[in-house]
Amino acid sequence: MSGTLDLTKMRYGTELLKRGFAKMQEGGVVMDVVTPEEAHIAEDAGAVSVMALERVPADIRAMGGVARMSHPDMIKEIMETTSIPVMAKARIGHEGEARVLESLGVDMIDESEVLTPADPFFHIPKKDFTIPFVCGCTNLGEAIRRISEGAAMIRTKGEAGTGNVVSAVQHASLVDAEIKNIQTADKQEREDMIDIIMRGFQRMNDASEFKLKLENLPEGETPFGTMGEVREEVASILDEVASIGRLPVVTFSAGGIATPADAALMMNRGMDGIFVGSGIFKSSDPSLTAEAIVLATHHFNDPSIVSEACSMVGEAMPGLEIETLDVRLEERGW
Amino acid sequence: MSGTLDLTKMRYGTELLKRGFAKMQEGGVVMDVVTPEEAHIAEDAGAVSVMALERVPADIRAMGGVARMSHPDMIKEIMETTSIPVMAKARIGHEGEARVLESLGVDMIDESEVLTPADPFFHIPKKDFTIPFVCGCTNLGEAIRRISEGAAMIRTKGEAGTGNVVSAVQHASLVDAEIKNIQTADKQEREDMIDIIMRGFQRMNDASEFKLKLENLPEGETPFGTMGEVREEVASILDEVASIGRLPVVTFSAGGIATPADAALMMNRGMDGIFVGSGIFKSSDPSLTAEAIVLATHHFNDPSIVSEACSMVGEAMPGLEIETLDVRLEERGW
Repeated sequence: MSGTLDLTKMRYGTELLKRGFAKMQEGGVVMDVVTPEEAHIAEDAGAVSVMALERVPADIRAMGGVARMSHPDMIKEIMETTSIPVMAKARIGHEGEARVLESLGVDMIDESEVLTPADPFFHIPKKDFTIPFVCGCTNLGEAIRRISEGAAMIRTKGEAGTGNVVSAVQHASLVDAEIKNIQTADKQEREDMIDIIMRGFQRMNDASEFKLKLENLPEGETPFGTMGEVREEVASILDEVASIGRLPVVTFSAGGIATPADAALMMNRGMDGIFVGSGIFKSSDPSLTAEAIVLATHHFNDPSIVSEACSMVGEAMPGLEIETLDVRLEERGW
Repeated sequence: MSGTLDLTKMRYGTELLKRGFAKMQEGGVVMDVVTPEEAHIAEDAGAVSVMALERVPADIRAMGGVARMSHPDMIKEIMETTSIPVMAKARIGHEGEARVLESLGVDMIDESEVLTPADPFFHIPKKDFTIPFVCGCTNLGEAIRRISEGAAMIRTKGEAGTGNVVSAVQHASLVDAEIKNIQTADKQEREDMIDIIMRGFQRMNDASEFKLKLENLPEGETPFGTMGEVREEVASILDEVASIGRLPVVTFSAGGIATPADAALMMNRGMDGIFVGSGIFKSSDPSLTAEAIVLATHHFNDPSIVSEACSMVGEAMPGLEIETLDVRLEERGW
């Protein structure tokens, strides 16, 4: 569709354009969909974007095995039948999948721990792409690493596919507390934090019997530049975070959000918007649940409307205890 | 109903009003109900309040998964069909659910470990609400943390859904012994106890890679104020406890109470009243069991009446050994 094509030109390109696309999502709900029909339901319910994937996290979790990028035909079908932006997931560190998604013309790539990671050392060098990326984080250091690599949007990780909001709260709270913390840190404490953040780029050192010491070599290369360059970038992002008191990119909450009250909770905790995965299409009435979650997200600070949204929905997705999980998706990525 | 509405105005608001509502419960039995019919049975049997929830703890335990706030329609239905106060449960740390319950006009919110916790670090900042809250505790420190956060009523935790009174006795006894202990503590010992109590607010420090040291920073923020402010509040509550020899709020026993003799036991141990969950509607004759437990609670120090109450009931709920449990609900919250 020509409309989609123009939009692609508008949002691909510079950091400003990439972050601009993310900004357009603000205050909204991004919904996981696996068919064009579900994409329609999401669009009708008022989703700002859909995330095209083959299986929702609850099914990925139940089926096990390797979860990969969705089939291009399925993504194209969804792109052709909806007028809202379409996001799609690539595996952590899998530039191959990311290039395919970019060439398909999706609006944003989610480098996602919900899929099986492809690179145990580094994430995708996202600055090498003109398409914007969203990445997950469990704490401030992880968020800053992703932004330094070029992520245009951050979602705090929850434990996807569980319908259990506790991990989403945990990571959003941690990022928030850590931001407050750096605002009061002195020069030395700030340097120590940068050291801690840089460790996330040095996983290769520990894996090599030759002790690569990426951090000590001026030539120490990462896919994102030399370690010195990366450190400068990290320091500059940390300074920006300290000065503005939040992440410099749009920050959504994701993973385990299953009810309108969950959505309102995360918005009230300062999130810019939410991703809902299994919560909608694993509920008893997806269409109503989708509408109710959008309603609660838009009116998060009006309890009577959130209460009304809670009344609208039937049975929420059943949910899983975090302690009983075989696989912790949130622990993928670093 | 307009009667309910007026009652709402009377009990919402200041600490005094909130604790006043709790005071009205004294000496009584609060019963878990899942339908308007059960609410009627509870009211007819002489319950002081009902706790509206979707499943009794025994069923939550059996079904597993994520347990959340009940559906607003179900709560409203129960509110409309009973003339006694209605309580409802929100997940630990889930202000979103609490705001919904407040807007529904329930009389008291139970921030309950029987539901799946939503926040791994902090409980709900209950002083930000005008509705009163009841919270569980396993020891004195936990009780003081909850009161400092604004709880108007405490229930010592038992192991809900087991029909096993041992945990209820354990926690009631601990709180009691710890209260006696602080009454004889010197200044330094009292300070040490405050340190121990404050640790419960510092779970975030251990979770952060940056070592937040909330306790060392004057700026260290919690949802309840700075750590300094919280510490002052805790110290003042501890002083009050030492001076009056009991918690400064109404203190019920909950979890595992299944027979009239159990109820009498807890009342004789100095509890101000009891919560009965699965014990009534998982028994062979709920109506008779409800009446018998109310009778035994009111006449706890008259063994012949308690004996009569025991004669009234048929088969008690089957019950579970604490050691065989997969999930210890009482360990949620801190």
